[in-house]
Amino acid sequence: MQQTFRLVIDCPDQIGLVAAVSQFLAEHNATIVEASHHTDQQTGRFFMRHEIRADSVSLSLESFKLAFRPIAERYAMRWKISDSHQKQKVALLASRESHCLIDILHRWHSGELHCDIPCIIANHASMQEYADWYNVPFHWVDFQNQDKATAFEHVRQLLNEYEADLTVLARFMQILPNSLCEELAGRAINIHHSFLPSFAGAKPYQQAYDRGVKLIGATCHYVTKDLDEGPIIEQSVLRISHGDTAADMVRKGKNCEKMALANGVRYHLEDRVIIHGNKTVVFA
Amino acid sequence: MQQTFRLVIDCPDQIGLVAAVSQFLAEHNATIVEASHHTDQQTGRFFMRHEIRADSVSLSLESFKLAFRPIAERYAMRWKISDSHQKQKVALLASRESHCLIDILHRWHSGELHCDIPCIIANHASMQEYADWYNVPFHWVDFQNQDKATAFEHVRQLLNEYEADLTVLARFMQILPNSLCEELAGRAINIHHSFLPSFAGAKPYQQAYDRGVKLIGATCHYVTKDLDEGPIIEQSVLRISHGDTAADMVRKGKNCEKMALANGVRYHLEDRVIIHGNKTVVFA
Amino acid sequence: MQQTFRLVIDCPDQIGLVAAVSQFLAEHNATIVEASHHTDQQTGRFFMRHEIRADSVSLSLESFKLAFRPIAERYAMRWKISDSHQKQKVALLASRESHCLIDILHRWHSGELHCDIPCIIANHASMQEYADWYNVPFHWVDFQNQDKATAFEHVRQLLNEYEADLTVLARFMQILPNSLCEELAGRAINIHHSFLPSFAGAKPYQQAYDRGVKLIGATCHYVTKDLDEGPIIEQSVLRISHGDTAADMVRKGKNCEKMALANGVRYHLEDRVIIHGNKTVVFA
Amino acid sequence: MQQTFRLVIDCPDQIGLVAAVSQFLAEHNATIVEASHHTDQQTGRFFMRHEIRADSVSLSLESFKLAFRPIAERYAMRWKISDSHQKQKVALLASRESHCLIDILHRWHSGELHCDIPCIIANHASMQEYADWYNVPFHWVDFQNQDKATAFEHVRQLLNEYEADLTVLARFMQILPNSLCEELAGRAINIHHSFLPSFAGAKPYQQAYDRGVKLIGATCHYVTKDLDEGPIIEQSVLRISHGDTAADMVRKGKNCEKMALANGVRYHLEDRVIIHGNKTVVFA
Repeated sequence: MQQTFRLVIDCPDQIGLVAAVSQFLAEHNATIVEASHHTDQQTGRFFMRHEIRADSVSLSLESFKLAFRPIAERYAMRWKISDSHQKQKVALLASRESHCLIDILHRWHSGELHCDIPCIIANHASMQEYADWYNVPFHWVDFQNQDKATAFEHVRQLLNEYEADLTVLARFMQILPNSLCEELAGRAINIHHSFLPSFAGAKPYQQAYDRGVKLIGATCHYVTKDLDEGPIIEQSVLRISHGDTAADMVRKGKNCEKMALANGVRYHLEDRVIIHGNKTVVFA
Repeated sequence: MQQTFRLVIDCPDQIGLVAAVSQFLAEHNATIVEASHHTDQQTGRFFMRHEIRADSVSLSLESFKLAFRPIAERYAMRWKISDSHQKQKVALLASRESHCLIDILHRWHSGELHCDIPCIIANHASMQEYADWYNVPFHWVDFQNQDKATAFEHVRQLLNEYEADLTVLARFMQILPNSLCEELAGRAINIHHSFLPSFAGAKPYQQAYDRGVKLIGATCHYVTKDLDEGPIIEQSVLRISHGDTAADMVRKGKNCEKMALANGVRYHLEDRVIIHGNKTVVFA
Repeated sequence: MQQTFRLVIDCPDQIGLVAAVSQFLAEHNATIVEASHHTDQQTGRFFMRHEIRADSVSLSLESFKLAFRPIAERYAMRWKISDSHQKQKVALLASRESHCLIDILHRWHSGELHCDIPCIIANHASMQEYADWYNVPFHWVDFQNQDKATAFEHVRQLLNEYEADLTVLARFMQILPNSLCEELAGRAINIHHSFLPSFAGAKPYQQAYDRGVKLIGATCHYVTKDLDEGPIIEQSVLRISHGDTAADMVRKGKNCEKMALANGVRYHLEDRVIIHGNKTVVFA
Repeated sequence: MQQTFRLVIDCPDQIGLVAAVSQFLAEHNATIVEASHHTDQQTGRFFMRHEIRADSVSLSLESFKLAFRPIAERYAMRWKISDSHQKQKVALLASRESHCLIDILHRWHSGELHCDIPCIIANHASMQEYADWYNVPFHWVDFQNQDKATAFEHVRQLLNEYEADLTVLARFMQILPNSLCEELAGRAINIHHSFLPSFAGAKPYQQAYDRGVKLIGATCHYVTKDLDEGPIIEQSVLRISHGDTAADMVRKGKNCEKMALANGVRYHLEDRVIIHGNKTVVFA
């Protein structure tokens, strides 16, 4: 994979902004592989992502940061630049359902998802077999015989020990405490098995069955303390009919869940997602 | 169009039921064009629709009804048989938005929707031009200078005068009173501009914009007194992005609305929909 | 609708290019509403579209063109700038099927498609009623009692008289002669009723039926002298089953055709499409 | 999983046929879980599938077959009845790409696909790791250092030894010889990485890239000696843009391939597919 730097910026929209950034890139000889812009007309906020060939730039990543800082300050930017060859560490949380877990693992193992997976943490021991297959350290955390606060403190410690950059809740069925949501803000992704805001909460397929909808879906979103209400990254749907039982929906919906989660995680890892209030800009 | 009879049945599931119906059809020499069955495993209710060539049957529709009655009674059926050449009368209600109205009108005019359209009733006079083009009687009902009860009484009278079999709310933005919902139960179809149950109520595209969803949609459902909660016939969605304003969603969503409404109305007119509690069986 | 200028550029990719353009825009105080970039990695060609608020720029459109010319020359750009308030003239060609014609007409009439429609030209007189409804001049061209060359010469003259900027073949079933294809290069859009390259040529739905595919579709593309092989702008598909006859496919497929054509025409009118060899860049 | 018998029939359409079958089922007290019918209006062929609760029937599967035979003969039926608890043996063929292989394996392992997987046969040794993980016997067949006829004779022997009921080509990139196609007729399923008939043959994603289509897809079909022209069971598509390279299409298309193959295999295993000439009836 070609090495690139990804410069991701958001700031108040101002005239001269794009000129300043592209002038800077040109001065340092950057070959732009991909460039995306968005202005939120309602809030006047500007979003920009550049992907540039690392070997085209006359600067190291560190020197680039130093050199860019004055521009960033002038325009009051929130910004970061990342190196595509520097893999993020993605910790996986799971419960009993394995389909999202194994989907992420196989995409990682086959080189499609460019990251490291330092650990799998689950409240069901049965996930261990998958961890072993993929040679990923596995930690079972007991959520039944100890109180949840203690269990989550254990999870928190593990995430810290493994220095997780991103935590993916691959159908992890425990509700994170507020403190952990805050600690992981913008760095924890969940997959909910409905097209939110429909059917938030428990048993969404049963809710969908009871309501008699003709479409089911899945939603990949950032975790926040407001359950199932975090910024949405990606959604996916498929058609069902009166012939589908709740169990059929569970089976079919797994395909939506896998797709929405895999896309969401990929966008995040490639620095394509910028959180803006309770929404996202996704330069897919 | 080939003339067919449509025999639509629902009743408690029982052994021998299908045999009895198909034995009856065979005895009267019926050539079956299409047959659909469904058993709701949860409620034990059985649903069946047969479409048979009218010219294959040795009976008139009336004689068929008489002859079939004993079977229907034996199995406690709710049932009906209809003649595809007997057009239903479809009254259209509209407000200011013309896209659904004109879509239904063109599908009717070009022979795709097999029905009569006896009248268009609207609370905006601007719909008259479309009615005139299509040579359909138009009635403007004033919802501003008289109270709603009076206005709806006028609507109700018009529907009765024109003997509407089906009332289609083609983006009609007034909420029907309970009494009219009850009078039209199972005979009034609405299009809501969101994938329900998400974004029920007013301004669903603005709600969708504010929530930051990545899909928008439309829902075609029977009108009940619980607003936006009637049995769903059809839903349709499409993908949007952070680049879409609420106005873009309004524009794009119209395509979903037209599709979901046109399909829903077609299914109803072809006797493909059976209401079952707050859900539908749709033999599409 | 907010007035915007659309600056559309393609040229060999070079460092400094984006900087030069954005520097120019900043100097003239342009507020950028939308910016899109693409580099074709295979050919090294660069594509850019800016949509800027007309009232933010200190220049008239003509002065803008003059001022921009040196940059355009330095970077060997193919480029244009257009004014969103200057409506393009879109001539419609039709045959017997009215669904695409009426769809475009209604989107235009309701203000969704921002253009003028100076004339409808058809080889079936039955299209006249739609033209009359929408108050658009109608010309029937006889393709049966005169040779095709003469008929097309008549079409060509009409397009010139009406100064058509864009010609839309709304299910026009005559094959344009090479000379006319060349004259209209990049300014004529066709809708083909299959997901090309599957089922090029005649009777695509019958071909689809015979092949037993599970999806049907439509393709909106620029007209070239190689029939059904021009640059694709937009495609649309939907699911079918063994239960669908070729006639059902014709009916259902119309929805795909309308969507793909309406999107394609819209993208073209908003200067979102750049032709690149036999492909398109679409900044949708 | 509830045990069911699946009675699948196709024969010339005749009056009395459905009555005879349903009369038979009623006499033996069969509770029908699912019933599907289709008449091909063009060929006059009739297709029927019943799924009945095994515990409701007063007969063993063998006695059922004996008892049903006279009806089958009277109506010249091609028919079979299968027991949902009797698992089919599915042999997997693979090459270098693992995504379809692992997808099928995980669906099988997690109980979603109800079958046995007696062996994996591949012409790339790298597939062994997946076979080992899932504890499935693995056979590498050398297609480079021996002629293809010899290699395929080896494959054929393995399929016979393992008594494969179904052979799934999970992105197996070798073309089966005619003799093997014939031997496996109706019992071998392939996944092709395009929405056929577009882009048959080699490198479909590159073909799609070169043609500039806006949709890519995958096709699951029965293997016949006419390469990529067998009866289609299932197709799947997704939207791409000018921004996608051929490599992006390969990556994204994998999702289509997995879905179409998994659905196709499932339909086959549940006896939902009837081959009719070069097409299929799929009671999905």
